[in-house]
Amino acid sequence: MSAPATEAHGAQLLVELFVMLAGAKLLAEIFARLRQPTVVGEIFAGVLIGPQVLRWVAPSETSHVLAELGVIFLLFNVGLETKPSAIFRVGRTALVVAVLGVLVPLAGGYLLMLLFDGGRPIEALFIGTAMVATSVGITARVLGDMNLLDSHAARIILGAAVIDDILGLLVLAAVSSAAKGSVNLAEIGLTAALAVGFVAAVTFFGAPVLTRAAPHFRRLRAGNADFVIAIVLCFGLALAAVYIGVAAIIGAFLAGLALAEAVEHNHGLHQQVRGATEFLVPFFLVNIGMQLDLQVFTDANTLELALLMTVVAVASKLIGCGAGAWGLGPRGALQVGMGMVPRGEVGIVVAQIGLAAGVIPEPLFGAVLFMACATTLIAPPFLRPLFAVRGEG
Amino acid sequence: MSAPATEAHGAQLLVELFVMLAGAKLLAEIFARLRQPTVVGEIFAGVLIGPQVLRWVAPSETSHVLAELGVIFLLFNVGLETKPSAIFRVGRTALVVAVLGVLVPLAGGYLLMLLFDGGRPIEALFIGTAMVATSVGITARVLGDMNLLDSHAARIILGAAVIDDILGLLVLAAVSSAAKGSVNLAEIGLTAALAVGFVAAVTFFGAPVLTRAAPHFRRLRAGNADFVIAIVLCFGLALAAVYIGVAAIIGAFLAGLALAEAVEHNHGLHQQVRGATEFLVPFFLVNIGMQLDLQVFTDANTLELALLMTVVAVASKLIGCGAGAWGLGPRGALQVGMGMVPRGEVGIVVAQIGLAAGVIPEPLFGAVLFMACATTLIAPPFLRPLFAVRGEG
Repeated sequence: MSAPATEAHGAQLLVELFVMLAGAKLLAEIFARLRQPTVVGEIFAGVLIGPQVLRWVAPSETSHVLAELGVIFLLFNVGLETKPSAIFRVGRTALVVAVLGVLVPLAGGYLLMLLFDGGRPIEALFIGTAMVATSVGITARVLGDMNLLDSHAARIILGAAVIDDILGLLVLAAVSSAAKGSVNLAEIGLTAALAVGFVAAVTFFGAPVLTRAAPHFRRLRAGNADFVIAIVLCFGLALAAVYIGVAAIIGAFLAGLALAEAVEHNHGLHQQVRGATEFLVPFFLVNIGMQLDLQVFTDANTLELALLMTVVAVASKLIGCGAGAWGLGPRGALQVGMGMVPRGEVGIVVAQIGLAAGVIPEPLFGAVLFMACATTLIAPPFLRPLFAVRGEG
Repeated sequence: MSAPATEAHGAQLLVELFVMLAGAKLLAEIFARLRQPTVVGEIFAGVLIGPQVLRWVAPSETSHVLAELGVIFLLFNVGLETKPSAIFRVGRTALVVAVLGVLVPLAGGYLLMLLFDGGRPIEALFIGTAMVATSVGITARVLGDMNLLDSHAARIILGAAVIDDILGLLVLAAVSSAAKGSVNLAEIGLTAALAVGFVAAVTFFGAPVLTRAAPHFRRLRAGNADFVIAIVLCFGLALAAVYIGVAAIIGAFLAGLALAEAVEHNHGLHQQVRGATEFLVPFFLVNIGMQLDLQVFTDANTLELALLMTVVAVASKLIGCGAGAWGLGPRGALQVGMGMVPRGEVGIVVAQIGLAAGVIPEPLFGAVLFMACATTLIAPPFLRPLFAVRGEG
């Protein structure tokens, strides 16, 4: 009774789903055989089947929803495999990594725009802000595939990504209100308090509360209680996170983190969450590839800007986050820096807000889109050798 | 990088998802405590949060896609837990059950419309056709929850549901061409040959081929090869089924059936498929409830017709399928008959085709929608005691 669907509509949906799924997995296999990261293969599948090349599938409400579910499950899964105490132990380093990883790209983007484009400061600020937010999903996937989520550098990256998201939120709030002409410090302070309070509350109290509650989960009469509670919690915290202003995936990650100790030996639950994740993540990756817009290549000026922006985006995270993680030695610093390179949906959302506010012109938006995709494609091939040879630094 | 989503849009999506998921699971728990089937609770959650009562969520592209995925995974999962040989053994009984289970409702619906409504024969034929197709998802879920999918009656129901779907397709083809004024027997013959050929080919050759191929799955380099191949196969056959004209869920069921022996001892794979299923099925159930349209209650005439239609729909499957399964004894016949009672998306699609062709008027469509929801809600409370007390008949 799946909606007033005509048969043709049902066929079209299934074609879309099948092409995305099979395309992603075919390219993943090819990339694996070429000893390249499978995530890049799956993103590349999106480029190939998407509007830029074969035009078999276009980004749609369906691909958007499945992509969102995919990245939520991805981070929930990562959280489930991470113990809060492991994050606490690297907390101070993660904080420094996150702060420098926000300030350097913000400054880098700002200066690039002023020097290259001669643009207005507010435009430059928006571009800088769009270059701040790390999209941790890609790195988490690469390290998860390598079974390295419990490495020292991986934990710093995960912790820093959470803090990075909060800082990005605050920078955006500040820049947005600056664009409207007045910076409301009280409002920004409230945003900060809410975001920090939410993350701190879930991180510090979530695990003890759930560990105590877990033995009672089985008292539910409806079947498969552990899994049901886990996913309801995941989506509940994802929703709460969005209301507070941080990304849904941060809520999902924290939900996983809070549950990790309570369900540590629940092998069935882990496999079930993994099943939903493995089914949905390809849509997240394909969807990234489908959004790549090669339009920027038609205008030499925009192309130059897009490439420069990508260089600054990569270099600034490497420098900022690498400096923050310098205590790990050069290789560890590079691991952390490269792990923070992928930008993603948050950068695009920032650019969209700028576009809607009339602060960012259309070609610049295309350049940001390119930068977000390019950083996502660049990081994985470097992450693998960096993490592979001698393990963590 | 999940589509050009504004933050508000993302929040709305998460609200929808959370309300559907948490609502379904809350009602499932309440119904379980009242010793009622949890599926009814989840459908009822849809009625409650949907447009008829609270209006928190309405059927949308999102709910439609997730519902479709849910029922595809549901039937795939059922197929995975069913061995082809177990279906073959009940093949003859299933065939008789399916044939009588098509003819009796078709005749019942036809006569009801002629006698009650005094309508045109073509209208009556369409309504009869809309009353033919069993939606096996609900019954499969109820029996799966009771761990009774491997009972004799359950196997007959599953086998009969596949045949029922093919017969329903043929009846629809015949009735549709009759509505256009000419019955093209060659085309109907081709449709029949394709549908039967597809089902037979997958059922007879699928399992041996996959059982031989399975040891080679691990040669894939990209991770989690078994699961990836399983879901690509599931969606590939679902798509093929839709192209041939049978329901996507039949393709998914056959994919599971073909894989069942090859992955019999692959516990991880079963858990992973189960995870995706458990996450997605609530959306299927909630979506049924959200479509219930209480509009029929505003017109006494339509209401009377809708109730009569429901009575005929229930009685005709009980009688037709029950007669076909009479060899199992009275209880077994009742089990099979009641298991075939839920109608669903197929009946609605038939009515929509009639609506679009101008053969079925709007109020009649509402009555069919009511019948489809009502039969789905009626069956589970009877299925449980029928199957519970003495097991299979």
